[in-house]
Amino acid sequence: MTPPDLERQLDFLREIDRLKSVVRLSPLIDRSRRENSAEHSWHLAMYALVLSEHAAGTVDVLRVVKMLLIHDIVEIDAGDVPFHVPATHSGQNERERLAAERLFGLLPDTQAADFRDLWFEFEAAESDDAKFAKSLDRFQPMLHNTATNGGTWVECEVTLEQVKARCQPPIERGAPVLWEVAAGMAEDHYRKRSQLD
Amino acid sequence: MTPPDLERQLDFLREIDRLKSVVRLSPLIDRSRRENSAEHSWHLAMYALVLSEHAAGTVDVLRVVKMLLIHDIVEIDAGDVPFHVPATHSGQNERERLAAERLFGLLPDTQAADFRDLWFEFEAAESDDAKFAKSLDRFQPMLHNTATNGGTWVECEVTLEQVKARCQPPIERGAPVLWEVAAGMAEDHYRKRSQLD
Repeated sequence: MTPPDLERQLDFLREIDRLKSVVRLSPLIDRSRRENSAEHSWHLAMYALVLSEHAAGTVDVLRVVKMLLIHDIVEIDAGDVPFHVPATHSGQNERERLAAERLFGLLPDTQAADFRDLWFEFEAAESDDAKFAKSLDRFQPMLHNTATNGGTWVECEVTLEQVKARCQPPIERGAPVLWEVAAGMAEDHYRKRSQLD
Repeated sequence: MTPPDLERQLDFLREIDRLKSVVRLSPLIDRSRRENSAEHSWHLAMYALVLSEHAAGTVDVLRVVKMLLIHDIVEIDAGDVPFHVPATHSGQNERERLAAERLFGLLPDTQAADFRDLWFEFEAAESDDAKFAKSLDRFQPMLHNTATNGGTWVECEVTLEQVKARCQPPIERGAPVLWEVAAGMAEDHYRKRSQLD
């Protein structure tokens, strides 16, 4: 017989398989299809491992990786709301809070509390770890958009000013160098587009 | 201008996006499609975070998570070879070694060496961290197979004896409790199947 706490852990691990079916607006770099939230979380964890030296503050890489691995699990219940479609954001915080309670609540109590706390810390984006994690979550789609001739910027008809207004604060707070790079790439993209018009 | 080392880091992060297009034989639990290696790596990292208390040895969770996040990146060049299709395994070690050189070699030198060393440590499965990481890599597909009425066991016509011969050593060495659970689930599955025959 499986010990009860291990059974809860396995239930959780089976349940989060559903994150692989939550599809985001962002394209893969080869544009073959849209990215799902599980593979997006993997990619962001890789960003944290590779780019941690560029964090604004002193970060605990394991905590950052852990935050990024779990940050989208709430979307299993709450769905993904595209960053550049503000009209979809209403009520999302509450939906995600309820999702965090249910999904992390599948785990044994101590572990459930640990994951829930870490998810709330990520959402609050106040600690150095969370600020860096958030900056990567905003930076990766910018890299994908510049690598796919505009990606969601074109799809959502976003201006360069909107990209800057939405992305500069979270990226710059967590990783100033990454914002410099991202701003340069975005400016290049919009300059080329304006030349085509 | 992007600093040269950061440019190499971003090249690597763009290149590994291709892991999302490497498709494994294993099904998602809802059987809607097969799993890809990027989302599989995310899932395994979650297994490590959730199940680390069950490791046979003393493990450094960050190192285990890191190993699992990078363990399949070589498949971008070398492809995935299904565990239960031994005929595909010939020459794979050499293909993966070359892939590790090329792919991790995209990173700045120190980081490239660090990732390459960690990948070789995972492959060797000698350290406590690597033994636990390997055990999870074998355990997760067993959980999927029992949750999908047989999954790759049915597809590859694998017997219970073959499952045990192939999976018991790596899982038991890294996490004895998980082998007990997995063996029980596999026995249940094969007993039910034999009752249907």
